[in-house]
Amino acid sequence: MRYHTHKERIFDIIFGTDTPAGKAFDLFLLAMILLSVLVVMLDSIDAFHSQYGQLFWYAEWGFTLLFSTEYLVRLWASPKPGHYARSFYGIIDLLAILPTYLQLLLPGTQYLLVLRLLRVMRVFRIVKAIRYLAEANLLWRSIKGSLRKITVFFTFILLLACIMGSVMYILEGPVHGFTSIPKGIYWAIVTITTVGYGDISPQTPLGQLVASVTMILGYSVLAVPTGIFTATIHREMSLRRDLRRCENCDRSGHDHDARFCNHCGTELEEQV
Amino acid sequence: MRYHTHKERIFDIIFGTDTPAGKAFDLFLLAMILLSVLVVMLDSIDAFHSQYGQLFWYAEWGFTLLFSTEYLVRLWASPKPGHYARSFYGIIDLLAILPTYLQLLLPGTQYLLVLRLLRVMRVFRIVKAIRYLAEANLLWRSIKGSLRKITVFFTFILLLACIMGSVMYILEGPVHGFTSIPKGIYWAIVTITTVGYGDISPQTPLGQLVASVTMILGYSVLAVPTGIFTATIHREMSLRRDLRRCENCDRSGHDHDARFCNHCGTELEEQV
Amino acid sequence: MRYHTHKERIFDIIFGTDTPAGKAFDLFLLAMILLSVLVVMLDSIDAFHSQYGQLFWYAEWGFTLLFSTEYLVRLWASPKPGHYARSFYGIIDLLAILPTYLQLLLPGTQYLLVLRLLRVMRVFRIVKAIRYLAEANLLWRSIKGSLRKITVFFTFILLLACIMGSVMYILEGPVHGFTSIPKGIYWAIVTITTVGYGDISPQTPLGQLVASVTMILGYSVLAVPTGIFTATIHREMSLRRDLRRCENCDRSGHDHDARFCNHCGTELEEQV
Amino acid sequence: MRYHTHKERIFDIIFGTDTPAGKAFDLFLLAMILLSVLVVMLDSIDAFHSQYGQLFWYAEWGFTLLFSTEYLVRLWASPKPGHYARSFYGIIDLLAILPTYLQLLLPGTQYLLVLRLLRVMRVFRIVKAIRYLAEANLLWRSIKGSLRKITVFFTFILLLACIMGSVMYILEGPVHGFTSIPKGIYWAIVTITTVGYGDISPQTPLGQLVASVTMILGYSVLAVPTGIFTATIHREMSLRRDLRRCENCDRSGHDHDARFCNHCGTELEEQV
Repeated sequence: MRYHTHKERIFDIIFGTDTPAGKAFDLFLLAMILLSVLVVMLDSIDAFHSQYGQLFWYAEWGFTLLFSTEYLVRLWASPKPGHYARSFYGIIDLLAILPTYLQLLLPGTQYLLVLRLLRVMRVFRIVKAIRYLAEANLLWRSIKGSLRKITVFFTFILLLACIMGSVMYILEGPVHGFTSIPKGIYWAIVTITTVGYGDISPQTPLGQLVASVTMILGYSVLAVPTGIFTATIHREMSLRRDLRRCENCDRSGHDHDARFCNHCGTELEEQV
Repeated sequence: MRYHTHKERIFDIIFGTDTPAGKAFDLFLLAMILLSVLVVMLDSIDAFHSQYGQLFWYAEWGFTLLFSTEYLVRLWASPKPGHYARSFYGIIDLLAILPTYLQLLLPGTQYLLVLRLLRVMRVFRIVKAIRYLAEANLLWRSIKGSLRKITVFFTFILLLACIMGSVMYILEGPVHGFTSIPKGIYWAIVTITTVGYGDISPQTPLGQLVASVTMILGYSVLAVPTGIFTATIHREMSLRRDLRRCENCDRSGHDHDARFCNHCGTELEEQV
Repeated sequence: MRYHTHKERIFDIIFGTDTPAGKAFDLFLLAMILLSVLVVMLDSIDAFHSQYGQLFWYAEWGFTLLFSTEYLVRLWASPKPGHYARSFYGIIDLLAILPTYLQLLLPGTQYLLVLRLLRVMRVFRIVKAIRYLAEANLLWRSIKGSLRKITVFFTFILLLACIMGSVMYILEGPVHGFTSIPKGIYWAIVTITTVGYGDISPQTPLGQLVASVTMILGYSVLAVPTGIFTATIHREMSLRRDLRRCENCDRSGHDHDARFCNHCGTELEEQV
Repeated sequence: MRYHTHKERIFDIIFGTDTPAGKAFDLFLLAMILLSVLVVMLDSIDAFHSQYGQLFWYAEWGFTLLFSTEYLVRLWASPKPGHYARSFYGIIDLLAILPTYLQLLLPGTQYLLVLRLLRVMRVFRIVKAIRYLAEANLLWRSIKGSLRKITVFFTFILLLACIMGSVMYILEGPVHGFTSIPKGIYWAIVTITTVGYGDISPQTPLGQLVASVTMILGYSVLAVPTGIFTATIHREMSLRRDLRRCENCDRSGHDHDARFCNHCGTELEEQV
């Protein structure tokens, strides 16, 4: 394939993944992302910060300038720069470089903690990595297909947590750590999800009885999202849904032998 | 549609969900329910109670009067008031307003804790919210279909908890927190459901061995309710695929949420 | 139906569940079993023991004499007393009455704790209750059908627990609670099954890294027994296995339309 | 079967599992492996070490010499010794004997802890046991079949743990145990996998809110690997049913562990 302009060739390297140069660029970028996240993580450890803090500061500015250049080149090489800037990855790319610059605008000791929060967002850079995984499609479709059922289910879980948390607040009271209803709800979520930190745990016999009922309920409802998702992924795998997208309502995930969209009735394109 | 009387129009707004006015009323009610629950929750936090306690008190009486009016209008607008009063939602509606009135009948400092328990029941108001979710049907049918199997299963779990709790009471004894057999059963339920607070945990080598066996048993039985529910929901979903038949081309096997036949594009009948 | 002898009528009441008298006897027995277990449980609570200890002592002897009489009548009414005595429920029935008598043979303060262990076995009486549940059949068949696969799986889990427990014993050492390899294995089982008491938890960075890997492994292997059991119960439900038992190899669970046993090739009886 | 040389007969005993001598050798070796692991475990308990330390030392050297001899004989009996030495089990066999010898090369009190690490590797000997389990095949194929999907899934889990861990590090800070981002990630993994030790738990209201969201996310994603694996094993099981065809009546759909056709009683071919 011949490129008409220099810009088109760069676009293909940065955005494409088919050419050897495009692949090399993507791998290099992935390594840089992981390395920059590692620097942020190591810098948060006191022992490393006091010894290599200066080095980490230079490294961070290095990565920020590199990613800034990349962002500007992406904007320049895009045929529609505004479209890229408003896309999901465009926003993530911007979020990954903003925090370091914001440090300069908001100086002073008292803002240090807030600045750290901004710097942590650099971790979002790693989200880019998911782009390189093709297998995620089937999973994504299955999750989307069972999303509505799982939403209903989680509404029920939250309701259960609210009721159980309130009941435990009354039964146990502030003396045993249940200092408010929101705290009781926090306990209920810790219990229903079977996490069970033990930072708040029932002490009275009646509280322990209600807690036992909550646990068994949580234990059995665990079966519900699993059942929903398993049934959906099973159907996805047996039906071999294809990637065709309805021109009218933009939904995908149609049966392999479907001729019409089952959401709006529009005729689908022939399968390639 | 024309209404014969004023009462019929109000009935349609309050009980119906099809007209714009009915929809608006339901959304307004849902917002009021969530807001009133939020007030109860915030009031239970000491810091908020001492500062905004008076405001919360007015807000609570405001919500109670609003919901009381709603309850009376529902009673008046119903063709069969007694039928509504004895229905599930009629009782819930009554339970949502009673606690605040009961506060007046039971004054005095020593009853404060009991009154709180009554007030908490207002959380049940949120149960109404589930009415607005239509997707819950398939889930509900699957749960009902696997209820008997899951009952058998939970009888077994309780039996296991009783035996393991008693054994641990003997092995560990009151010194290590197992002060009675019911406490041992509480520990066993905490362990089998994999919650694991750690407020009571085995200290002796033999106790830890028995605890390990209990954990592995709990771990493996977790598979049982999931298996039951998954198989049931899978059958429900394939059943639905088979039950819906296109009037035009007579093909079945449509998705349970499909609106159009994917073979000929004809609109499918609504699901019952 | 006419009974030839007095003994046959009593046999039908005690062992049968078809006649009204048999049903009433079973329900009465179930209530007695649950009541006697409740007495043992309440007696283990210090507050109740000191106040009602004497009453519980009388109640326990009452239940023991009742169950002893029942055991003797069962032996007398059985056409083959030895067959009953050696059957599963015959042994359970005996185990449920023995502990109280053993208390008389082993007096003295120092044996009290051991006697308690024996008394706890009375809880096994409740095992009888499972007899009354018919739905358990499908579940039982599914569990048996996936037993071999699950055994392989648990061998792997134990192996993983041994290796991870040993590694953590080295990495964390006795200072952080990992006092021996068996203790490390106990920690590994607590972690893999996602119970997580927190009585022993890694403190060093390297230990926490290895613990994280162990958790994620435990998290993913949780999917394996669930997958096995779900696939098995799904097959059981769709195939509608029947209760026919092969005369030659005594296996059940054949396909509904099977004519020959698929384990030994013997011709099966016609379906009733 | 007649053996041409003495070496071939020994090869068949050591590597083969078909002859009675081969089976007896394998069982003897399995018992020795389990016994030697037991000795290492018991030796790690202080009470046992101080009393039987000398005995354990002799036992360990006994096992090491036995396994060394076995290793040398395997090398000698193999037609291609190099091939065995570089195989998976060849390396495991070597790793199982090396640590004891390495103790001699690295003497001194200060290295004792390191030596223990080497000795623990003897636990890997037990890995050999898995060789004797044939049922593992179906499981292994199912796991391999869903490996790519599960890899995608775990990348997502790690990403979620990194983001949530960083957010909690900012919200809670070093005062509540979140001393660095890696520590926050450790907490996030403990929470998402629902292990929940409770050694680090959020204390601030905002931290508890974010923790609740993390738990519910962890709870729901638990459904994903289960769904993937269940769908895969289900397909494997139905695939096997279809693949096995009776030579006599040409019917397929036999259970994967069936030995005879259930339609005509003909013996089925062994599975590959």
